[in-house]
Amino acid sequence: MERDQISGNSIAFYYGNNILIVSGEGEGRVTRIDVVLIGAGRMGQVHGPNAARTPGLRLRYVVDPRPGAARAMADATGAEVATLAQALADPDVGGVLVCSSTDQHLDNALQAVEAGKAVFCEKPIDLDLGKVLAAQPRFEGARFLLGFNRRHDPHFLALKRRLDAGAIGALESLHIVNHDPAAPAPHFIPTSGGLFKDFTIHDLDMARWLLGEEPVEVFATASCLVDPEIGRLGDVDTARTVLRTASGRLCVISNTRRSGYGYDQRIEAFGAAGMAAAGNVSRDTVQAFDEAGATAAPIAYAFPERYADSYRAQIAHFAEVAHGRAQPATGYADGIAALALAEACQRSMREGRPIRLQENR
Amino acid sequence: MERDQISGNSIAFYYGNNILIVSGEGEGRVTRIDVVLIGAGRMGQVHGPNAARTPGLRLRYVVDPRPGAARAMADATGAEVATLAQALADPDVGGVLVCSSTDQHLDNALQAVEAGKAVFCEKPIDLDLGKVLAAQPRFEGARFLLGFNRRHDPHFLALKRRLDAGAIGALESLHIVNHDPAAPAPHFIPTSGGLFKDFTIHDLDMARWLLGEEPVEVFATASCLVDPEIGRLGDVDTARTVLRTASGRLCVISNTRRSGYGYDQRIEAFGAAGMAAAGNVSRDTVQAFDEAGATAAPIAYAFPERYADSYRAQIAHFAEVAHGRAQPATGYADGIAALALAEACQRSMREGRPIRLQENR
Amino acid sequence: MERDQISGNSIAFYYGNNILIVSGEGEGRVTRIDVVLIGAGRMGQVHGPNAARTPGLRLRYVVDPRPGAARAMADATGAEVATLAQALADPDVGGVLVCSSTDQHLDNALQAVEAGKAVFCEKPIDLDLGKVLAAQPRFEGARFLLGFNRRHDPHFLALKRRLDAGAIGALESLHIVNHDPAAPAPHFIPTSGGLFKDFTIHDLDMARWLLGEEPVEVFATASCLVDPEIGRLGDVDTARTVLRTASGRLCVISNTRRSGYGYDQRIEAFGAAGMAAAGNVSRDTVQAFDEAGATAAPIAYAFPERYADSYRAQIAHFAEVAHGRAQPATGYADGIAALALAEACQRSMREGRPIRLQENR
Amino acid sequence: MERDQISGNSIAFYYGNNILIVSGEGEGRVTRIDVVLIGAGRMGQVHGPNAARTPGLRLRYVVDPRPGAARAMADATGAEVATLAQALADPDVGGVLVCSSTDQHLDNALQAVEAGKAVFCEKPIDLDLGKVLAAQPRFEGARFLLGFNRRHDPHFLALKRRLDAGAIGALESLHIVNHDPAAPAPHFIPTSGGLFKDFTIHDLDMARWLLGEEPVEVFATASCLVDPEIGRLGDVDTARTVLRTASGRLCVISNTRRSGYGYDQRIEAFGAAGMAAAGNVSRDTVQAFDEAGATAAPIAYAFPERYADSYRAQIAHFAEVAHGRAQPATGYADGIAALALAEACQRSMREGRPIRLQENR
Repeated sequence: MERDQISGNSIAFYYGNNILIVSGEGEGRVTRIDVVLIGAGRMGQVHGPNAARTPGLRLRYVVDPRPGAARAMADATGAEVATLAQALADPDVGGVLVCSSTDQHLDNALQAVEAGKAVFCEKPIDLDLGKVLAAQPRFEGARFLLGFNRRHDPHFLALKRRLDAGAIGALESLHIVNHDPAAPAPHFIPTSGGLFKDFTIHDLDMARWLLGEEPVEVFATASCLVDPEIGRLGDVDTARTVLRTASGRLCVISNTRRSGYGYDQRIEAFGAAGMAAAGNVSRDTVQAFDEAGATAAPIAYAFPERYADSYRAQIAHFAEVAHGRAQPATGYADGIAALALAEACQRSMREGRPIRLQENR
Repeated sequence: MERDQISGNSIAFYYGNNILIVSGEGEGRVTRIDVVLIGAGRMGQVHGPNAARTPGLRLRYVVDPRPGAARAMADATGAEVATLAQALADPDVGGVLVCSSTDQHLDNALQAVEAGKAVFCEKPIDLDLGKVLAAQPRFEGARFLLGFNRRHDPHFLALKRRLDAGAIGALESLHIVNHDPAAPAPHFIPTSGGLFKDFTIHDLDMARWLLGEEPVEVFATASCLVDPEIGRLGDVDTARTVLRTASGRLCVISNTRRSGYGYDQRIEAFGAAGMAAAGNVSRDTVQAFDEAGATAAPIAYAFPERYADSYRAQIAHFAEVAHGRAQPATGYADGIAALALAEACQRSMREGRPIRLQENR
Repeated sequence: MERDQISGNSIAFYYGNNILIVSGEGEGRVTRIDVVLIGAGRMGQVHGPNAARTPGLRLRYVVDPRPGAARAMADATGAEVATLAQALADPDVGGVLVCSSTDQHLDNALQAVEAGKAVFCEKPIDLDLGKVLAAQPRFEGARFLLGFNRRHDPHFLALKRRLDAGAIGALESLHIVNHDPAAPAPHFIPTSGGLFKDFTIHDLDMARWLLGEEPVEVFATASCLVDPEIGRLGDVDTARTVLRTASGRLCVISNTRRSGYGYDQRIEAFGAAGMAAAGNVSRDTVQAFDEAGATAAPIAYAFPERYADSYRAQIAHFAEVAHGRAQPATGYADGIAALALAEACQRSMREGRPIRLQENR
Repeated sequence: MERDQISGNSIAFYYGNNILIVSGEGEGRVTRIDVVLIGAGRMGQVHGPNAARTPGLRLRYVVDPRPGAARAMADATGAEVATLAQALADPDVGGVLVCSSTDQHLDNALQAVEAGKAVFCEKPIDLDLGKVLAAQPRFEGARFLLGFNRRHDPHFLALKRRLDAGAIGALESLHIVNHDPAAPAPHFIPTSGGLFKDFTIHDLDMARWLLGEEPVEVFATASCLVDPEIGRLGDVDTARTVLRTASGRLCVISNTRRSGYGYDQRIEAFGAAGMAAAGNVSRDTVQAFDEAGATAAPIAYAFPERYADSYRAQIAHFAEVAHGRAQPATGYADGIAALALAEACQRSMREGRPIRLQENR
């Protein structure tokens, strides 16, 4: 599944192990592990079809309290509708995809782990850091993959590889841009956990992944510039966050709920010997020139488009985890760490001062 | 299946009609038409798995004289191994994908058409223009889609839309770059039909598609600079071709069998009011800067990587054709026209002069 | 002198008014105002030759306490060596370029203003905000242009024009990158005023220019990652600053004393309807591709290269000011405002908290 | 004058030898050679002011049959108006810039050479290859620099350096784009020499410079698509030319008299190990993004803007030639070779067949 495996004679990248068999380089049919999808909503619609197509997995059951949604997903993917109890009781089921509403994540994941299944869980584990910390012992030893999909994005992975290869020398600072194209509907705000826990949390995970050191101090400042209704609901829509590590590395995170120009997803890394940056993905490569200047296509509009590759790769990674061939790229502890940073951001914003991480926990 | 349908709430682009159902916007399960794959070789390995995943199609049979290849493809896609006769005799089979060796294309396509099936046929129909012309009457009225996949490439489609929208005014000239990353093995050369029929033919189809007028004159000049063995086998590996239409529009085609830097696939269009160009696709968006300068990722290496989207879209289009919901984007006549141009290129190169198309036919 | 005046028939952009005469579009020889250069050091070497070539100015005298430096500059530009008193006493002298050492700026500028000359003064006016505030009344009514050259940079000007034209709707936030290529020699640090007064001050002026609102709060955090000697001397070399305006607009400033890849000078502006960004200038447009990827030229290395156009345009603007045809783009009050922000940055860094501007003054 | 000399402490690139003196690295004032400008028209307005500013030259006389033009140029540059005889008789005059009308080039250059002066001559030497060949012996040993300014363009020079450094391995083919922004006025056509001698001639020189081998065969095809008046005057406005060298290297030249989008000046070089390309120069680096896509500045509009650097560098090179410190980058023989190729292009277009160079001479 690595890009590095591409060659003129191989179509491994596009069609996975099955096709390597066709090319005469494999030795037999891929074994598939049966998985359950919990939740056929927004993220379930991303992960369910991906699981159905991933060599190494078979989407066996769909669980959703809304019968129509469950039925439609099951029909579309060749799966069956089931209750969670039924699905977990099936001894052939080896994995569970937790894509339910956020307030169900922790409970669903716990049940699946306790049934001995490998678990993929959408982020966040829960909005309440206390609950997440309390449950941590029950996840000891579990095969638990947390849905920080950006670690699987080919562009950010390429950036990480460059940094690890020393392309810019010792890392000194990061700049992370995460701008959503359009503000969410106001009804989404009250249960979202707020900008930092809902949105910035991805950037906090990216920062931890790339900085190579834990942030020890956080300063966040934010405004409500996009939609006054968001402000009335107690949230913000525009923020800048500065993280600082023990050795003095700095990371800025730029967030807005509405860019007006697509899903701006960029990371710049600065080091002792240079700079490396992962840029936006354009919808097509066409450029036009006339006397007024040059025009080009918009950037990818929103998460399903921009991160489609990362979602596929993440489920492929989950297949490897479920087969026991890989350790989860992101686990329960990563969920805790990102959530703790998000809480520190909230507190910094509210108190108007930098927050030391140890004082926050 | 249109990019234009993407929105924050829709994942239509990524998951097709099935997912529109999940989103509650469709009304029932997609009907699938059974199809046969003839040939599990290089192009069959591209089209077979795509057909297996295309909503609206079911890959039912795999036909290949090599039992191992047929079996591996069938296993990987959930299809069955069959003979062509068996497959065509199945009344549930509505479509055939002709991916056999070039010398079998015409015969396979004829059998499928005469069995009343919708046919997708890899290019070229045949290397012999006379045979193709002779068989033309038997394809009258057939649902026949010829494999000029580049017409389905999102970048070239975006270019076409810009031209059709008048972005550059009246078209005056084109520049088409088609450089393969690495020369084919010499054993491929004798049965390839030569550079123009095997490789340039794609560009000749692009030129016809974009010029909006048939070329009336061709001049081609070529060298053997890449591999002297190609020259010993009577072929060339580096060529420049100039096409001219009746109204004086000009098109240059640049070809080499070995770029050394990936699959260079670009088109520039020049018009009365400006220029529009479709560029190469990079493997990732990372750029790095140090005191020596900037570096970026390579461009997509070869056809399975560069044109993966176009192959998927082409088979999705074939599903529409097989369901009777679309006319084929490229048909038998397009195959004839491109082949006639390729023959004119060959003759121009051999005779060292421009060739008028009417003198060639 | 405007780019907008370029046309196929005009070379106005490159050669100024004189050449418009040649083209038959002017009516006579340009009148030149005599000017004095004080200081033939680093910045004098930039501004002196520019003044010598600017239509509308004549570099008449060079004043420098180092006789060799004064002589060399005078020879190179056709000027004469003089003392400041001699030069200011010449009634033909209409303008003075203050390029002396920072601690002389204020005194030199005052003498020149009091002699009735138009004054161009390199930034900063002084490192001591108190002294600058105290002297302010003596600059009332003076023709005084402060050397914030970046306001004359064609790329930042183009950005400003886009913002003013409403290209991104109402401005919400800015990101300013200002990374020096290589750290200054340690001996430069003690008299530099520190990172914020010496270096960030340019960005603070850019922020004021572009934000359209004064910052009311500043948070700065900084590290010494580049050169420990800088730290031993009490300064920092890597900083991130967040500005906030009364209406909640946010601006991040990214600074480092050593980029390792050239003079990184970028500004991104985010608004209600989109984003506009001024990028780096590359040394040349060549790109190369091989199997390892793409390479391109480095960005402009340092200020004399990157900002050459801005320095020329600034002196051309000074000529307009000296001739009484333009108001200074940046005056004494701009120097005060930027210096006050720089002091607030220092204090924020030292006290580890955001600083309200009113509490700082 | 080399970019490579730029460093943080040096402003050599911008201000030449004089400033190196200021920096204490030189040893005395630059010696200047007096030069004469013949012709204060379109190209004289480019070269005259450049000569006036080039360290090592002094523009002493302006010669032009139109008194007003001569006077304006002299006033603007500090030179005197003179007749050619007067100017050549001045023993202090060491160089002559021939910028008269094309039909005067050869005669002016001959007089200057025979007066023992170093000569810079605008291209072409003459439109009549026979006359140029006949006069060749009289230029034996002359210090004669022909105005193929593109060899001095920093972007094309960077490309050349990359090729010479082996960045793409052995060169195999070139693609040269030379598109003028807007068609010339029809009255210019009859004396222009036609598209190939007037315009393509620059590309033919670039091809010779970069190919490393002389073209032996030319094929040109052209249309009149821009302005029918150009066709009525017997010329063409849109052309594609294919050059071929003895070893089989190929070069395509793309020309149009009206791009509609600026002065498109690009060169792509393809070799055994990759590709290198010099791209267009944009007016500024600003990019803007909104929901419709990305926009950027136009490319440089026309020759005075796009090639300003090359013109300055060319005159600086002429100063080196006049001082006896450099051999001319392009001489009389280069003028002959390019003109012979342009004639072959014309003949190819007229006769509708490739032309071997030996049959053309």
